[in-house]
Amino acid sequence: MLANCVLPPHHTQETFSKAVEELHALLGRENVDTVESNNLDDGSYYEPPKTHDPFHILDQTEYVASIVIRPASTEDVQGIVKIANTHRVPLWPVSIGRNFGYGGAAPRVRGSAVVDLGARMNKVIDINEPQAFALVEPGVTYKALYEEIQRRGLKLWIDVPDLGGGSVLGNTLERGAGYTPYGDHFMVHCGMEVVLPNGEVVRTGMGAMPDPSHPTGSANTWQLFPYGFGPYHDGIFTQSNYGIVTKMGLWLLPDPGGYQAFMISFEKDEDLHQAIETIRPLRIAGILQNAPSIRSATLDIAVAGKRAEFSSTGKPLTEEEIEAAIEKVDTGIGRWTFYGALYGPEPVRDIFWAAIKGAFGKIPNAKFYFPQDLPEKKGSVLHIRDGTLRGVPSFTELEWTKFVDNGSALFFSPISPVTGEDAEKHYELAKRRHAEFGFDYLGTFTIGMRELHHIICVVYDRTNTEQKARAYKMLRLMVKDYAELGYGEYRTHLSLMDAVADTYNWNNNSIMKLNETLKDALDPNDILAPGKSGVWPKQYRESQ
Amino acid sequence: MLANCVLPPHHTQETFSKAVEELHALLGRENVDTVESNNLDDGSYYEPPKTHDPFHILDQTEYVASIVIRPASTEDVQGIVKIANTHRVPLWPVSIGRNFGYGGAAPRVRGSAVVDLGARMNKVIDINEPQAFALVEPGVTYKALYEEIQRRGLKLWIDVPDLGGGSVLGNTLERGAGYTPYGDHFMVHCGMEVVLPNGEVVRTGMGAMPDPSHPTGSANTWQLFPYGFGPYHDGIFTQSNYGIVTKMGLWLLPDPGGYQAFMISFEKDEDLHQAIETIRPLRIAGILQNAPSIRSATLDIAVAGKRAEFSSTGKPLTEEEIEAAIEKVDTGIGRWTFYGALYGPEPVRDIFWAAIKGAFGKIPNAKFYFPQDLPEKKGSVLHIRDGTLRGVPSFTELEWTKFVDNGSALFFSPISPVTGEDAEKHYELAKRRHAEFGFDYLGTFTIGMRELHHIICVVYDRTNTEQKARAYKMLRLMVKDYAELGYGEYRTHLSLMDAVADTYNWNNNSIMKLNETLKDALDPNDILAPGKSGVWPKQYRESQ
Repeated sequence: MLANCVLPPHHTQETFSKAVEELHALLGRENVDTVESNNLDDGSYYEPPKTHDPFHILDQTEYVASIVIRPASTEDVQGIVKIANTHRVPLWPVSIGRNFGYGGAAPRVRGSAVVDLGARMNKVIDINEPQAFALVEPGVTYKALYEEIQRRGLKLWIDVPDLGGGSVLGNTLERGAGYTPYGDHFMVHCGMEVVLPNGEVVRTGMGAMPDPSHPTGSANTWQLFPYGFGPYHDGIFTQSNYGIVTKMGLWLLPDPGGYQAFMISFEKDEDLHQAIETIRPLRIAGILQNAPSIRSATLDIAVAGKRAEFSSTGKPLTEEEIEAAIEKVDTGIGRWTFYGALYGPEPVRDIFWAAIKGAFGKIPNAKFYFPQDLPEKKGSVLHIRDGTLRGVPSFTELEWTKFVDNGSALFFSPISPVTGEDAEKHYELAKRRHAEFGFDYLGTFTIGMRELHHIICVVYDRTNTEQKARAYKMLRLMVKDYAELGYGEYRTHLSLMDAVADTYNWNNNSIMKLNETLKDALDPNDILAPGKSGVWPKQYRESQ
Repeated sequence: MLANCVLPPHHTQETFSKAVEELHALLGRENVDTVESNNLDDGSYYEPPKTHDPFHILDQTEYVASIVIRPASTEDVQGIVKIANTHRVPLWPVSIGRNFGYGGAAPRVRGSAVVDLGARMNKVIDINEPQAFALVEPGVTYKALYEEIQRRGLKLWIDVPDLGGGSVLGNTLERGAGYTPYGDHFMVHCGMEVVLPNGEVVRTGMGAMPDPSHPTGSANTWQLFPYGFGPYHDGIFTQSNYGIVTKMGLWLLPDPGGYQAFMISFEKDEDLHQAIETIRPLRIAGILQNAPSIRSATLDIAVAGKRAEFSSTGKPLTEEEIEAAIEKVDTGIGRWTFYGALYGPEPVRDIFWAAIKGAFGKIPNAKFYFPQDLPEKKGSVLHIRDGTLRGVPSFTELEWTKFVDNGSALFFSPISPVTGEDAEKHYELAKRRHAEFGFDYLGTFTIGMRELHHIICVVYDRTNTEQKARAYKMLRLMVKDYAELGYGEYRTHLSLMDAVADTYNWNNNSIMKLNETLKDALDPNDILAPGKSGVWPKQYRESQ
């Protein structure tokens, strides 16, 4: 039965089958899948696999699970953790496993047991309209939460990332971002329930205060006040391997009473500098009310069609081909295109819009559009963003992966200050490396509170081993390149976690030593997500 | 020399003097004060002592330091930590020591060495106008930061708590709050430098990424993007004893381009319910742009004069006396008075003000004031708040402590949802206990994002042992009372830390077990702030 299964480190079929038998007893045989590593299906991004990374940049089986297990409750998760401690089985918890571009559901260590939390733990536990919050299990997708709010007819909005099929809880734990005023998902989460690697369950913040009269058994402020009393823990359960989060609260936006998406396109490549300089003060002042983005022409072109439609050479688009493609797709985009939105009643929006238009109007030939100004057609990014920026889950954002055959994507995401000079450095470096390695530069800059997220979408053909190796080599170089500029990645793919963690090495890697101290204290048997974010448990460190 | 000094636990004069000698060598004799516990001066709140709690509710020497030491640098702090590890001396770090109402500079464990970080580490390391942030050392007060911004003529605002003399860094670590749109100080901090109990220095978030070309030696996003890569640690260094924070970044508000403070007074005691119900949707929608507060008449009366001016009995004010005092002080206040502000250019403020006035206007006899509508005189709280709500440090807010002779204050601060029903429960319980124990109820409700902070200001005569014992008994009862309602304190006085921590006991105290696991891993020699927030190191736990 385990014949084609990649076993966890230091396990034989015999030792591992003991753990599997206990998992059968705990969860039922039907909730423990054995992974046939010789027969993996990459699926689609509508139905991605839980067994490995469908966008594999290394070998398809490099990051592959031994088994996929589906708990139904926090108690099941505690049971799984106990079995893992007994048999020293590495666990890789995923909420839905749609961490696209960063590894999907795949584990960092081959042969880990993927704990598919969301498969059966997918309840919207609470939605509160007057207090504007929700409490969710790992399997609640943005789409599901959105639909539940519509079903109940509540005047609440959610914030969504680019794709609507992912887990609300999982995205927050990865410190993902969206595009409404609540775009910083960690900032607007409130309260967690966490199974620690020793099997103990904690509730953070006000969740630690019991209230037997409340349905959750915790204080009714669990989703209202994040911090509680004493040390505030939530941050150490993000991008980490210190606990399995089984419930999470989040704040919802009250319907702002009005909304208008807009797009501003810039004619020239070099307009990026001035556009970013224009964005910063507007964003810090809150005149740009949300986390907006400015996208390269190539990214928006890729939404409209395959590369072959815009280039006959099979090579990355040239400057001339990009200019021609902008004309051809005819969606109003420029060399860079800014997508933002106005929130609130019309008189408020009018004031903000006047300020925004006045500021961006100083950039020669900047063009301003509302969705109603443009026909809705394939490749019309403004119509996609129109939904995303008001929290309507989208499933079309990743269309640009189809730019190349068997298109797969890996996100490379360095952070810098929001200045024109920094944006230029980002762009020049990426363009140079992409040209050198023969890839199209598809990029977007998202502006958080005070930081620029540069999201470089590296697209490759996953059936082409040579192309993947080339992309991976470029990515490894870019980790170093960007670190030399002082830019660090805010999140990364499995295959780059160690390299990225190595760049956060101030004072002789003192932050990693702290991470390891916490890891050893919380997970003495090294069972939880070894290698996540470059944090390795003791035995793994010693064997390296 | 150590004759009148309260020694740390398990120390003799001989063993302790060895540690003191090493500290002399490290810091210079002039930076190590021995505390004469038989000769303590309570000072004033302009010049509070670093040796003990000037607002002592227990005996003056209950929470007293053995020595007060003044490092000049992060390296000094590392040196102090090493000496403390060698000699097992408990350290109690304070930034400025003005944690009024929660214990001031006093240590939880008698005889701890108070590390007065701010005395010599008080540089504003950086203020950046276009990016709107600052980087400060522990000794930078709100006043100092404000004045530095004025001196440089920058168009930036800070957020201040009630008093301007405290540490920006220290207040944030206690998760203190202010009243502008940046009122949640933890939420708007960005990046820390921390000396761990083992002497290692870490920088959190993007600070862990080195950049030799930057003056700090860390990436230029250290103050721009809080999270960095991997586990996000900052929260565990707040209200905790896991590290000594030696630098902290914070976001500043860009000048909003306009400002108007306002006050709304409510005629009847029972208007509290409707006022809170009116506040919640306005606050969640961001129409109330800041963290506003609604104060009891008694608190505002106490700012205007001593109790004796309003009551001849020497007892707490009766309902009739409160009504008469409202007339007498003649500052426009009602039984409850709401203090808020509008931010932005006039057309924006006009829209918000119309919405606010429309909503509160439904409460019979609500009265609306701008500061210019009222004469500026003693007791005019609106004129004090006018400064506070635009980030101008105030030194008059604690005037109400003079309501009684030798007035001292302890803040009791339970958290609940923002509903009229919850506010009533808060108020009724506090009023009942205050009546029972013979104290005036002086209270204020501050509205954060989605939570109600009820700040009960218990005022007592610190020279009156019987009165203090009575107040303390009431407070200990209120910890339990409020926990029964499901309300937990967000912060507390030294003398109540264990009691409050005990109320956060969901699932058999699992959060405290996590706290202790972290404590044992990070501080194996039990030297840092034992007992802080109820978290005791191993030896202390075992000896109890």
